[in-house]
Amino acid sequence: MNLEQIKEKVKNFKVEVPSWGFGRSGTRFHAFHILGEARDVYEKMDDAALVNKVTDAVSAVAIHIPWDKVDDYKALKEYTENKGLKIGAVNPNYFEDEDYLYGSLSNSNIKIRRKAIEQTFECIEIMRQTDSKVLSMWIPDGSNYPGQIDFKHSFELLENSLKQITNELDNDMTMLLEYKFFEPAFYSTLLCDWGTSYMLSKALEEKVKVLVDLGHHPQGTNIEYIVSLMSFKRKLGGFHFNSRKYADDDLTVGSLNPYELFLIFVELNKYFDLSLENQEISLVLDQSHNIKPKIPAVVQSLNNLQITYAKSLVVDYEQLRQAQDEQDVIKAEEILKSAYETDVRGILRELRKEKGLPEDPINNLLQREEYKRIIKERI
Amino acid sequence: MNLEQIKEKVKNFKVEVPSWGFGRSGTRFHAFHILGEARDVYEKMDDAALVNKVTDAVSAVAIHIPWDKVDDYKALKEYTENKGLKIGAVNPNYFEDEDYLYGSLSNSNIKIRRKAIEQTFECIEIMRQTDSKVLSMWIPDGSNYPGQIDFKHSFELLENSLKQITNELDNDMTMLLEYKFFEPAFYSTLLCDWGTSYMLSKALEEKVKVLVDLGHHPQGTNIEYIVSLMSFKRKLGGFHFNSRKYADDDLTVGSLNPYELFLIFVELNKYFDLSLENQEISLVLDQSHNIKPKIPAVVQSLNNLQITYAKSLVVDYEQLRQAQDEQDVIKAEEILKSAYETDVRGILRELRKEKGLPEDPINNLLQREEYKRIIKERI
Amino acid sequence: MNLEQIKEKVKNFKVEVPSWGFGRSGTRFHAFHILGEARDVYEKMDDAALVNKVTDAVSAVAIHIPWDKVDDYKALKEYTENKGLKIGAVNPNYFEDEDYLYGSLSNSNIKIRRKAIEQTFECIEIMRQTDSKVLSMWIPDGSNYPGQIDFKHSFELLENSLKQITNELDNDMTMLLEYKFFEPAFYSTLLCDWGTSYMLSKALEEKVKVLVDLGHHPQGTNIEYIVSLMSFKRKLGGFHFNSRKYADDDLTVGSLNPYELFLIFVELNKYFDLSLENQEISLVLDQSHNIKPKIPAVVQSLNNLQITYAKSLVVDYEQLRQAQDEQDVIKAEEILKSAYETDVRGILRELRKEKGLPEDPINNLLQREEYKRIIKERI
Amino acid sequence: MNLEQIKEKVKNFKVEVPSWGFGRSGTRFHAFHILGEARDVYEKMDDAALVNKVTDAVSAVAIHIPWDKVDDYKALKEYTENKGLKIGAVNPNYFEDEDYLYGSLSNSNIKIRRKAIEQTFECIEIMRQTDSKVLSMWIPDGSNYPGQIDFKHSFELLENSLKQITNELDNDMTMLLEYKFFEPAFYSTLLCDWGTSYMLSKALEEKVKVLVDLGHHPQGTNIEYIVSLMSFKRKLGGFHFNSRKYADDDLTVGSLNPYELFLIFVELNKYFDLSLENQEISLVLDQSHNIKPKIPAVVQSLNNLQITYAKSLVVDYEQLRQAQDEQDVIKAEEILKSAYETDVRGILRELRKEKGLPEDPINNLLQREEYKRIIKERI
Repeated sequence: MNLEQIKEKVKNFKVEVPSWGFGRSGTRFHAFHILGEARDVYEKMDDAALVNKVTDAVSAVAIHIPWDKVDDYKALKEYTENKGLKIGAVNPNYFEDEDYLYGSLSNSNIKIRRKAIEQTFECIEIMRQTDSKVLSMWIPDGSNYPGQIDFKHSFELLENSLKQITNELDNDMTMLLEYKFFEPAFYSTLLCDWGTSYMLSKALEEKVKVLVDLGHHPQGTNIEYIVSLMSFKRKLGGFHFNSRKYADDDLTVGSLNPYELFLIFVELNKYFDLSLENQEISLVLDQSHNIKPKIPAVVQSLNNLQITYAKSLVVDYEQLRQAQDEQDVIKAEEILKSAYETDVRGILRELRKEKGLPEDPINNLLQREEYKRIIKERI
Repeated sequence: MNLEQIKEKVKNFKVEVPSWGFGRSGTRFHAFHILGEARDVYEKMDDAALVNKVTDAVSAVAIHIPWDKVDDYKALKEYTENKGLKIGAVNPNYFEDEDYLYGSLSNSNIKIRRKAIEQTFECIEIMRQTDSKVLSMWIPDGSNYPGQIDFKHSFELLENSLKQITNELDNDMTMLLEYKFFEPAFYSTLLCDWGTSYMLSKALEEKVKVLVDLGHHPQGTNIEYIVSLMSFKRKLGGFHFNSRKYADDDLTVGSLNPYELFLIFVELNKYFDLSLENQEISLVLDQSHNIKPKIPAVVQSLNNLQITYAKSLVVDYEQLRQAQDEQDVIKAEEILKSAYETDVRGILRELRKEKGLPEDPINNLLQREEYKRIIKERI
Repeated sequence: MNLEQIKEKVKNFKVEVPSWGFGRSGTRFHAFHILGEARDVYEKMDDAALVNKVTDAVSAVAIHIPWDKVDDYKALKEYTENKGLKIGAVNPNYFEDEDYLYGSLSNSNIKIRRKAIEQTFECIEIMRQTDSKVLSMWIPDGSNYPGQIDFKHSFELLENSLKQITNELDNDMTMLLEYKFFEPAFYSTLLCDWGTSYMLSKALEEKVKVLVDLGHHPQGTNIEYIVSLMSFKRKLGGFHFNSRKYADDDLTVGSLNPYELFLIFVELNKYFDLSLENQEISLVLDQSHNIKPKIPAVVQSLNNLQITYAKSLVVDYEQLRQAQDEQDVIKAEEILKSAYETDVRGILRELRKEKGLPEDPINNLLQREEYKRIIKERI
Repeated sequence: MNLEQIKEKVKNFKVEVPSWGFGRSGTRFHAFHILGEARDVYEKMDDAALVNKVTDAVSAVAIHIPWDKVDDYKALKEYTENKGLKIGAVNPNYFEDEDYLYGSLSNSNIKIRRKAIEQTFECIEIMRQTDSKVLSMWIPDGSNYPGQIDFKHSFELLENSLKQITNELDNDMTMLLEYKFFEPAFYSTLLCDWGTSYMLSKALEEKVKVLVDLGHHPQGTNIEYIVSLMSFKRKLGGFHFNSRKYADDDLTVGSLNPYELFLIFVELNKYFDLSLENQEISLVLDQSHNIKPKIPAVVQSLNNLQITYAKSLVVDYEQLRQAQDEQDVIKAEEILKSAYETDVRGILRELRKEKGLPEDPINNLLQREEYKRIIKERI
């Protein structure tokens, strides 16, 4: 692929931003007030639009229910579209309702299970009204102590609840099953690894797929291998992009171990064209910026993703395959390294110029009156 | 040691309970309402007294400032003593004030650093008024992203702040320096391991010692070795007892890997008599019971500690040393195993009978009118 | 279950011992000479028989090809049976042949792949001759560096090789697919987690099942949950018992975190009767005793397993389920704890007496003339 | 620093290569034969010289005793110097002698302890004869099972042995104390973290310092923080460069998580000028190339280090400090990122041209007659 082709690809590469990335977030110890935090879903849409104005790299805004609940979803949709955006994945919340103390979709109490199912049906209805096609499910159910739950019983209850939910989905809707190693459950988690999500996605309908969140694995896990496996088994549904050093730290994507992120994109390019408007997989940021100002942090994240995607396109995949066939370990590695060492920021500057975008989107944002006004107004 | 001697030791074995263990706590996702949560420091003292009533195993109540701030500390002391307890370690909070967004005692802004120091002085004053002898410091300062802080600069600022604080301590006071691998900082933590706490404790006065929290280590860490090292280097200051499977999960002590807890007690017995009224080291529970009812969970924790301490006393330390000298790996291991496999619950039942305590403290608690009243009243 | 019933179950509980557990083993730094190491497969059978003589807890001897290659397998079978034992799982070796530098069953070189398949066919033939029913496959294929292999290509080659092998299996034979997080491959491993083994076991025939080695998981993994999942999905094929603190340390089973081992047995009891002569699942020791004398280490391992199995039978499973249905976290946990705290060594002593076995098998072994002779002769 | 200055620094940046990096190595499962392996210490020196011929980046050759034992060290020194190199750190081996089964310098058997000390004295004598100034100690002593050793006793024995050794050192010699989380000991390791090495280095003379091996930490450890701490406490003695994904994988430095390596160099530049001929710290490769051809792998490693060092020099340290003082997290991070994203390969090509070196040292090596001859001859 020549530089022109890479530029074209990166030009069309877009990612969903999460509404919750613009609001307050924190650790269990404290959620600090950060300048410029959005206070409702409309401000979140404003912020996403502002991010898009300086990057043109936002495909949609993922929403979280009930955090983004409104009376009139058609109005929310219209508001969003007037800002040049659309509503992306709908994320039901199974961790905040007091009833979910001992689980949601797998709760052994049928009333609570029923409530969790109904709440998901409501999300599907919101999808219909907002024209969202992706139901993105993170189910934190599990246990904190040995003995607390019977694994088989809980798993079967979860499977049964999910069956009811998939039945409710329209034909053009996809359900993504996110997994996570631990937290908030600290002894067992029903969907704790790709294997559990995959197993359920096979047992359910074809429209159920696996979502990979980059921070949800045990230390050392080869994530790019999981991505590849799920891709060629046609079960990769999408990503939650972020970064971590320890547990599920939810840091800026690409801020730690950017080479790992690059290797993930290298695998993705083998199975998907990420520059297509209607990507087969869902690419969503999912970060918790506890100390960074939110809007610049999202711009920085998109910039990191663009850099990484561009580098992954520099890889000579044919040569790579040839080196692999020759079992030449050093040569194969150097082909990847050579792409990774390439400074692609020139490509980004150029395509931004062509699009009429600022070359340095972070600094441009910080100097915009619009941004300064937000900082002042939201206190 | 014969059974009678073990019984006597366990009879006198007491542990501090944390005031915060009776109030609400949770994860970053949610803090669920749990039946019977204490709503202020007086209720916490009531709960600690109730725990002590069914266990006679509480040495004192550790408090947390500002959570347990009151106008009149003499009155709080009196209230506590009237309940048959005393006030234990005082724990300053460096993670909740909005000013501490970028650090407290190591903040590069001198005003904020000064504030953190002053706040600690206030805690020392509270110690004086409540007759507490232990200042228990957990300093979460660190950074979330590469480049955010200069390690040397931050470390020196921290060291300097601590110097000022130790100067303020009375002669009979001890400062404990807790360390933690990560969280809430997700890239670097100034006091991230025993080495950092030890290094500072050496640079500061003799009254500064190292506190070991069982959940604050990287996976696989041999904690009993650290405990032994700090003990014979005369720098072990105390413990925060809890349990974990993944990160700093703050589960009930002994609920996961109880053998590790046993091995820690085996080391402690080599250097300390934990049954003395004035233990040289501070033993404090530090758990976050997000789903268990708080008061029974504390009773359960004390029971786990008593079982483990009793087992550790069953070890034949002379035989152990002999097997070690003979380099007989299996024999040495079997000596530990033999003690560990002993069912010491009979000893506990007996000593409880002798003390006029219920043999099954958890169930006794649950059936007490006093407890039922608490459950009803606090909603 | 009353004590008598527990005793009967433990009486009939038997485990396979590995022939390689009696020979030399070590780390990559050195394999130390240990007193009494077996020097060929016949000595290994002698040792297994000696272990069985003092424990009556050995069901069979697992063998490893080519380490245990002989000219006449019928003779080996006869030799083993004359010792009162039989031959258990056959384990092909895919990590030692110089041709497997870049992989065995997934090698992109068809000649080497073919060689690995043929070698496995040979193992199946050995199974026929020794009346073994279990082909236990650990396939270390993977890569050390990014780019070295194409994940999809390698996985498909592996799948294809396994298909050829399963076709060759007799109807009453089972193939077990072991997985391992890492080592000897240090970047990617094709069968790196239960999900990969499970996925292949589903794609292949029903006779392919998943083998769980206790040391092959990332730190923190809830192994008992995986065991439960595989059990109720009817894909659990068996175990390699050992223990670890860090990586795949291959220490004595039960020597670290014995509570975790207990929790695994608690799950197993829900799905299997481990005391049956023809267990549905394969239970095999797989340890690398680098510093312990081999034969006593195996006796110690069996003793640890008997203790753990006995404790797991003490659990009141009905009460446990009831506490789970009531969502009483503390009660459910205490039911497990109560069983775990029980000293079952009395049960073991009794059943050994009834069987005419020594009450303390380790010490009995050490004092036997037979054992002393082995120590003297094998230098 | 401008490009010219960076080029000058990188030009003078040199690293020790380990003699053992050219010989056979492997995992505990197998040590594969790799084309072109050196068979004795003279061939290792030849290989190091060849590496230097295509890179001019080798400062010295670290040797390992007894692997590199010769009758005449003066002759070895002369041979090495005739190749344009010198002998670097001397590494005593405490893991291979059969007597060290239960430890070397901490063995409770005084005869074995004495042997280990004498062996180290011998290494110091070799240092004198080869003009080496660095004694690089990795002491694997520890235990595999609870109870095996008494921690205090073993630690004190180790400390005492080290005292005797430091007394024997000449005034211009330095002793480096390497630490390692685990392996080959699987339960406890006496020097398991920087804290243990630091503690001993403080207790011993000033000439004892801490050596950081990049693969010897628990997962998630912030190594750059340790490097910084040890540097400003004047206790950093040197590095063993390599890379890892799981445990102590000993892969090519920079092959995984190159950003972490960059962050380490960023810290080093704050305290040291790594381009000086007589660096204050010892920089040594320590890798185990189990599947890569050895000589090209060393060339690749040096290239990775040069790239990383060059990038770390691009950082604007003044701006960085200013952003830190302003507590501008994103700006500080972007300053690092901006340097990291720079393609410095042009600088390398240029300085190689200036030095008359091949621009692509790996491919140049592979095509050299000298290298082809080595491949052919050594079978």
